[in-house]
Order: sequence, then structure tokens, then C-alpha cells
Amino acid sequence: MYGAGEVQVEDVPDAHRIEPTDALVRVAYAAICGSDLWPYKSMPHDDTGRRMGHEFIGVVEAVGDEVRTVKAGDLVVSPFLWSDGTCVFCRAGLHSACLHGGRYGWDDVDGGQGEAVRVPQADGTLVVLPVEQDDALMPSLLTLSDVMGTGHHAAVVAQVSPGETTAVVGDGAVGLCGVIAATRLGAEQIILLGSNPERTALGRKFGATDVVAERGDAAVERVRELTDGLGVHSVLECVGLEQAVVTALEIARPGGAVGRVGIPENETAPTGIAFWKNVTLGGGPAPVRAYIEELLPDVLEGQIEPGLVFDRTGPLDEVPDGYRAMNDRETIKFLIEL
Amino acid sequence: MYGAGEVQVEDVPDAHRIEPTDALVRVAYAAICGSDLWPYKSMPHDDTGRRMGHEFIGVVEAVGDEVRTVKAGDLVVSPFLWSDGTCVFCRAGLHSACLHGGRYGWDDVDGGQGEAVRVPQADGTLVVLPVEQDDALMPSLLTLSDVMGTGHHAAVVAQVSPGETTAVVGDGAVGLCGVIAATRLGAEQIILLGSNPERTALGRKFGATDVVAERGDAAVERVRELTDGLGVHSVLECVGLEQAVVTALEIARPGGAVGRVGIPENETAPTGIAFWKNVTLGGGPAPVRAYIEELLPDVLEGQIEPGLVFDRTGPLDEVPDGYRAMNDRETIKFLIEL
Repeated sequence: MYGAGEVQVEDVPDAHRIEPTDALVRVAYAAICGSDLWPYKSMPHDDTGRRMGHEFIGVVEAVGDEVRTVKAGDLVVSPFLWSDGTCVFCRAGLHSACLHGGRYGWDDVDGGQGEAVRVPQADGTLVVLPVEQDDALMPSLLTLSDVMGTGHHAAVVAQVSPGETTAVVGDGAVGLCGVIAATRLGAEQIILLGSNPERTALGRKFGATDVVAERGDAAVERVRELTDGLGVHSVLECVGLEQAVVTALEIARPGGAVGRVGIPENETAPTGIAFWKNVTLGGGPAPVRAYIEELLPDVLEGQIEPGLVFDRTGPLDEVPDGYRAMNDRETIKFLIEL
Repeated sequence: MYGAGEVQVEDVPDAHRIEPTDALVRVAYAAICGSDLWPYKSMPHDDTGRRMGHEFIGVVEAVGDEVRTVKAGDLVVSPFLWSDGTCVFCRAGLHSACLHGGRYGWDDVDGGQGEAVRVPQADGTLVVLPVEQDDALMPSLLTLSDVMGTGHHAAVVAQVSPGETTAVVGDGAVGLCGVIAATRLGAEQIILLGSNPERTALGRKFGATDVVAERGDAAVERVRELTDGLGVHSVLECVGLEQAVVTALEIARPGGAVGRVGIPENETAPTGIAFWKNVTLGGGPAPVRAYIEELLPDVLEGQIEPGLVFDRTGPLDEVPDGYRAMNDRETIKFLIEL
């Protein structure tokens, strides 16, 4: 990406191992993320450009001398961040705060939207998948690299509990995965706030019991009507725009919790709304690495099918148009098949 | 109170019961609260004036026909809010969000800084104390009406856990009670951020292991030094000023939690700091009624002695000077003995 709207597929020097803890992974499937649309909308032009992508499944081509848990030939999924798995935060399950971790597409680490990636801290980062590369589960397994784990994180932080009421703000891929997560955690009522009929229909398939297409004050009013005037126990904020955060705080009932995973548009939030009713606001970059182990069995057993959020598949050449289509809300999420 | 700095003791019509769920309580001990200093600093002049106070212990003089759990002659403590004890939020332990509750000193409910108070929803609000009115425990029992429960709330929301690190922002009465609460909940390291030597000395007596007298960036730096560069797991924000909230968010480690009970100076908070490290921000008006039952045994057994936050005692006539002294930070907290 060379700037807003400027996405090109180019030949670059081959990815290669640098550290003895690296793995070299040939990418089989990758995805465009909603967070990739932020620079697509706003990145100033830059002649150097930036490698994109951070969600992928691939085959290990080679590993460094110190790598123990993956080997050449393994089919692996990577979380959207790499992490060592051993630091104080990884041990606490917060791999997204790893002291020795980092992001794909920066410095000398490749992005996932390409043919191969150097994966640092391979032992702590990669998870071996017990299926073949052409398995029908590939789309759902690919969501474990980001959107499914991110939706789950929102649900965990929002303290979704059996028998209680939940709202999910946003009908994008993460919001839809949030519906799956809330269903899986036993929420009795799941109100999906979204205005796109195809997306909210998928949300209902995933377990949403109600859909609120209104926005702003009208949405708040509608959620209150659906909850005896009280608001919901748990809110999954999966957008990040200021209006979404305000709505999330307003529809939470006293004592409730908002789990936010949408990248914040603003550095501040109107927490005064939250204070007077004792609503907790939490969330951030999801520790997807921790959640893969929790969610993988459900995907393998077919209990959840988050791969349905991919509504377009194409080769690398179509990635620029994939960005355009996702940005135009024509496509929910684009799966790159290499 | 007729406006900022204008506190007067006056004769008013006698408090009396109105509803069959009311109790009439003759006040024995009351207190001036840090939150009373907000209008003391900023209330525009108003000829009608406002009844003040919301922390008191007293003797029940009479109860309405529907009151079942307290009777004339009982010595009772009141939380700083009244609540019915039966609504969905009271049953969930969040009495401060009671659907039929309210505040003292507003409408036709008297404030606690006076000779008698009409207590609405007496069954849900008042707690009978199993001691005599002249017991030496009175100061500590009086803190259960607000500051001890509020400090405890900050600790609960901040998820203080055995063996972990805690910071308390603010060396006022609530912050000092927060130190007691963190100690009681098993925190291993308790860093008290405060600059008043007498108050922080009391904080050390209550269990603080470290004191940070610096403010702003220097305070953040000092807390990091004390925590291997990581920050603390739990932060009790007991001030409410913007700088205190910023400091609280900055000293929390990734995955940590901030429990805020200081009345917010601002309607917004810089939650961007929190998002990128997955720090949770929660808190609000404490459900003190729920906590009285939890904390009362510890006070009765002498396990905790929050009454030490009272460093001046006087009759009603001294209340105006008590406001002045607390506002000048000459007195931590003023106990009114009737």
C-alpha cells in the first residue's frame, strides 16, 4: 500500500529467515482485515509503501535452529500478532502485549498478503492445524487468525454470561464473529446493531435474536424497548467509530460491561456515561493466540462456522479490488487463495 | 449550603415520615464527604440552599407501617444512597442503581448533616448495628456509610487479587480506605500515590508498601521503577481529577484494571491509553449497602480500622469550619458528633 486507495501487487525480494527462532511460511490462504481499511482510507502517500496483511494459514517451509514446536511441512495458522509465548504477559494469556512480540508488515517482517512470510518467534506464534490444506474448514480456520478471536475477545471482556442479554454493535466480520462468540458463551438475548440486511441475516444465522437497524438515539431507544427499559448486560463494540462507542456505553445497563475491539477513532471516550451507572469499558487488541486453542476444537467439530463471513474469494491479483469492495461495503471479507 | 463557601447551620422544619416505607432517624454521628467539597468549591449562589450530608449513624425514632427490618430504638448506619433492596439491581448487588432509590439532601429527603433524617425505603437502606451508641468503634462503623465501601468498590472493580500489585491514586479518606481494602483483599504490593506526609503515613499504617509523592509523568516513571517496568495489575482511582485518571490509566500494566470512584472532573477519559494495552476502566458510585454486610464483621472484630481517617471531631456548629478545613486539606475528614 502506497497510500489511501493505492494497493498494488508487486514482486519483492523473497522472504527469508533471519533469527534462529524464525519460521519461513509459504502462505496458502490470507485475508483482508477491516483494520486494513483504515490506511486504505487515510494513509498519506509514501513512495516506499507498506507490506499489508496479518491473517494467514500456510505451510512451513523451513525453521530456525531454535524452533521446536513446528517443522517443515506443517500446516499452520498465525495470530495477527507474533509473540514469544513465554513472557509474563503471554503466560497470563495476553499474547497481544508480548514483551518480545510485534506486528506483521513492519520492519523486516513481511505482511500476510503475499506468497511467503518470515514468522518471528515461531514457537510462540504458530499453531499447527490437524487437517489437510484443501479441507473445507479452511475459511473458518482462517478466521482464528483474527476476526473470530477478536469477536470472542469482545465477548469475554463484555462478560457475556449464560442467560443474560448481549448487544453487538457492528455487522462487519468482527461483529458477526462476536455474535457467534456470544451464542457460544450462552447469552440468551443477542441484539445485533447493524443496517446491512445481508449481514444482519448472517448474524441471525449465527444466533442474533434481534436486529436493530436504527442508529444513534433511535438505536438506543430500540435496545431499551427490547430489554424492559434496562439496557443489556454486555456490549460488544466492534466498530471503533465514536458514535459506536457512545451507543455501546448508552445501551449498557447499570453494572454492565462494554468490550471494545473496534480500533478507536478517538483517543478519548465519553466515560461520564459509564461512571454514573457503573459500566466497565475494556478491550483492545485481542490475544488471539490464547483463543486459538480454545476455539479450534469448536471449528474442527463444526460447532461454529465463522468462515461464512468470507463472501468473496480470489487470488492475489484481485487483492486491490478486494480492498475497494470491502471499503465500499460490497464485500464483508475477502479470502485470498494462493 | 447556599453556594460555594457558604455553609450555615440553621433551624429547619422537623424531619418527618411521609411514606409507609420510611423511617425517621435521629442522627448520632455524621460526616463531611470529599464529594461535598465539589459544591463547596463551585456551587452558584442559590437563595433556597441545599441540605447537605449523606453519611450517618443514628437511632430510629419511628418507622412506617410497612417497615419490617428496623424498629424504634435501633442503632443504624445508612449507606450514602437509599435503595429498596428488592429491585433487579439491588438483587444483583448494585444498590447504587436501585430503580426506586435516591440521594439524601434532595427533594423532600433531608441531608445527613443535621439532627434527624427521613430515610425512605428503610428496609432496603438501613443496617442495624449490634453495638451501643458510645462504642469506640463508631468512627470506623461510620465509614461504612461511604468512604470504606467506596474504597472497597474501587478495589473490587480494579480486580485486586492476592499476591498482585496495586496502586492507589489519592491520599484522601477514600484513597486511604482503598489501601485498607487492597490490603484486606491480599494485594502484595500497594503503592500509594499521594503527597501529604501525614496522610501517606496513615496509608503505610493501613498497608501501603510504597509511597509515590511525585505527580504526572514523574509519578508514572516512579511506579514503573517499582514494578520492574511493567506497571501494576490494579489501580484504585480515588480522586476524579483528569490528571489522576490519566495517571491511573498510565500506571496500569497491560491487561490491568482501573477502578475509579473519584467523581469525574471530565465527561471524557483518555481511553486510547487503555485500549492498546487492554486495560479495563470501571467504577462509579459504590453499592455501599451491599458492602456493609461484607465489611461489618471485619470492623466489629477490629481487623480493619478505617475510622482513623477522621482526624477532627466536632458538633454541628463546627460544620462550616469543617468544610473549610477539609477544603484547605488541613483535615482529612470531619466527624460530626451530635
